[in-house]
Amino acid sequence: MASGPRKKYLLAPGPTPVPAEVLLRMAAPTIHHRTPEFEAIVATVRDQLKQVWQTSQDVVTLASSGTGAMEASIVNTLSPGDAILCVNGGKFGERWMKMGKTFGLNVEELKVEWGKAVDPAAIEAALKKRPEIRAVLVQASETSTTVLHPVEQIASVTRARDTLLMVDGITAVGVTDMPMDRWGIDVLVSGSQKAFMLPPGLAFIAFSERAWKATESAKLPRFYFDLRRERDNLHKNTTAYTPAINLIYGLNQALDMILAEGLPNLFARFARLGDAMRAGVRAMGLELVAPDAPSPAVTGVFTPAGIDSGALQKYLRNQLGVEVAGGQDQFKGKILRLAHLGFSDTFDIVTCIAALEFGLAKFQHDVPFGRGVGAAQAVLATGLPAAVAKS
Amino acid sequence: MASGPRKKYLLAPGPTPVPAEVLLRMAAPTIHHRTPEFEAIVATVRDQLKQVWQTSQDVVTLASSGTGAMEASIVNTLSPGDAILCVNGGKFGERWMKMGKTFGLNVEELKVEWGKAVDPAAIEAALKKRPEIRAVLVQASETSTTVLHPVEQIASVTRARDTLLMVDGITAVGVTDMPMDRWGIDVLVSGSQKAFMLPPGLAFIAFSERAWKATESAKLPRFYFDLRRERDNLHKNTTAYTPAINLIYGLNQALDMILAEGLPNLFARFARLGDAMRAGVRAMGLELVAPDAPSPAVTGVFTPAGIDSGALQKYLRNQLGVEVAGGQDQFKGKILRLAHLGFSDTFDIVTCIAALEFGLAKFQHDVPFGRGVGAAQAVLATGLPAAVAKS
Repeated sequence: MASGPRKKYLLAPGPTPVPAEVLLRMAAPTIHHRTPEFEAIVATVRDQLKQVWQTSQDVVTLASSGTGAMEASIVNTLSPGDAILCVNGGKFGERWMKMGKTFGLNVEELKVEWGKAVDPAAIEAALKKRPEIRAVLVQASETSTTVLHPVEQIASVTRARDTLLMVDGITAVGVTDMPMDRWGIDVLVSGSQKAFMLPPGLAFIAFSERAWKATESAKLPRFYFDLRRERDNLHKNTTAYTPAINLIYGLNQALDMILAEGLPNLFARFARLGDAMRAGVRAMGLELVAPDAPSPAVTGVFTPAGIDSGALQKYLRNQLGVEVAGGQDQFKGKILRLAHLGFSDTFDIVTCIAALEFGLAKFQHDVPFGRGVGAAQAVLATGLPAAVAKS
Repeated sequence: MASGPRKKYLLAPGPTPVPAEVLLRMAAPTIHHRTPEFEAIVATVRDQLKQVWQTSQDVVTLASSGTGAMEASIVNTLSPGDAILCVNGGKFGERWMKMGKTFGLNVEELKVEWGKAVDPAAIEAALKKRPEIRAVLVQASETSTTVLHPVEQIASVTRARDTLLMVDGITAVGVTDMPMDRWGIDVLVSGSQKAFMLPPGLAFIAFSERAWKATESAKLPRFYFDLRRERDNLHKNTTAYTPAINLIYGLNQALDMILAEGLPNLFARFARLGDAMRAGVRAMGLELVAPDAPSPAVTGVFTPAGIDSGALQKYLRNQLGVEVAGGQDQFKGKILRLAHLGFSDTFDIVTCIAALEFGLAKFQHDVPFGRGVGAAQAVLATGLPAAVAKS
């Protein structure tokens, strides 16, 4: 304790900080889930999620991590041997591929350079070449490379075809505008520990009309993740299996907060925080991982030559209490990932950039203190209201 | 909610932020106080407080604000008509005076310019002139003017005389070295909502041997604040009246954390945070209120000409969620007071200085973003360990 940090700052792209209001709500006594009391909460949350998904369809809440909802996307809509196209531009794109292969699908890979967004024309070309492809699977925000893929444009390709678009929106829903119905997304999934300001443990999934139709002919076996059963229960304001009761309390509280802020304000906040974070790291002379298509949820930055990003990450964690993410696979040791989603605001960016300045100084990298912070502040200040001279 | 701040930062000199560990400990079920279970907690806390007070005497815990402990100092040791010398260099010095007059004491005022520390020679001169003065009453840290008075030197004057030294250590005990026994302080009081990382509601008071002796002849009436009764009970690991049970749980937890860090580390931390805060505001071109004798708990700073500190304070609170204190009386509208005690560390200083930069910019005061923050960071960095190159 003597020399360690006293406060902890969660600035990784999930889990993200949980507000006290949500923690307190989750601390309420666990009630039984087959009661009118709990069903009223389920009904409220069901309506709230539809607003966030911007859909008239049901949004099903699962007791699982986001990966569970990814699996539910596949097993509910496809049959063994079906061809799918996976956009593989990072660790989570890879996960779609592994999952497809595990379930015996015919997986076509669309490889994308790490740090770049997929070109919708490449998707269109692949679908023209193989019209039998039943689904395109992509991340909205590829958290491993901090890239935002152009979902709207991809949807304009898939919705004109008999091809489902399945979007892993785990670090995108509630972060940036992703109007499911308007764009024509067929499957949109997310998880509780990202924009939803909750601990991990819940996943969310919505299907378009044609995705629901696909469930009727899909032959892949599913039991826990059978969404038809969940939908039937949802219409009775309940769940097929035991729900994560206290997380659902917290979800209700978090959605109250999200909807009180309003989606446009929420999206503008994360856009501004992302702009500020990128301005801060650029002012420090650091190179962005995804300068052309940056995620609004997380900023990737290359550490200077000679500084192992893993060592820097550990310094920030152990000496400053600041938890950021490092890089994976080809980015291991090379990048840091700095989050700005969920319960994140002005001083989280200031803290993150200041922490980076402290860390780089301790690794003998010469950046004047305050240069990155000042550049971030200049952007953050644009989001602050003017002062009224008289109090 | 749309435009307001989402997070709140308590950077005023009390109440100070309460760590989650303390909040959770206080959330335990309230037990009865006349039980072996609660008495064990009282016994532990009694020993812990003696370590913090650096005394072999008892430290009594009262269910009151700090003002209650100030009153207990007077009513337990003095009699109507007794002469006392009050160091009046701020709002809390004034309080000693008002209290003395309320209880019919013969109050001699030693006026000190706001922002300056008292000169121990002036105290010595006053005591030489009026040897009948029974007690000298002073603040260690005068929170209203952000001054640290020289308690050690004052004690060297009083301990050679038949004069008690009563020290309001409300924002000093647990912040800076104040060894009661070694220096010869006769009465040392504090409150829970400062260095003790607790909500308000508890006050602490310790008497020297000769202060306890004075209780025998003191004629001022006292009942709730009768410390002899409290001491008798304390030796039976209980309290005279109903204790603030859950606050005592929290106190136990907070003292565990304080003693695990160790007093020398704790004092060094606040000294460094204060140095950084002062470096930050000076780099912004702002003038310190108490440059010669700055409190290690709180930094006072004059706002630039034309900027009402109350308006700036409200901007920080309402637009940034940052709670700092303004000025009182002659300092009203002129100063801000920025705290660095209790559950305070590196990024609280960064946040506070960044908030000031945002606020001043919005009041059209031209300071480049990052200048103050950078100067504070340069000081804060000295307290951070070196990086080990390999993770």
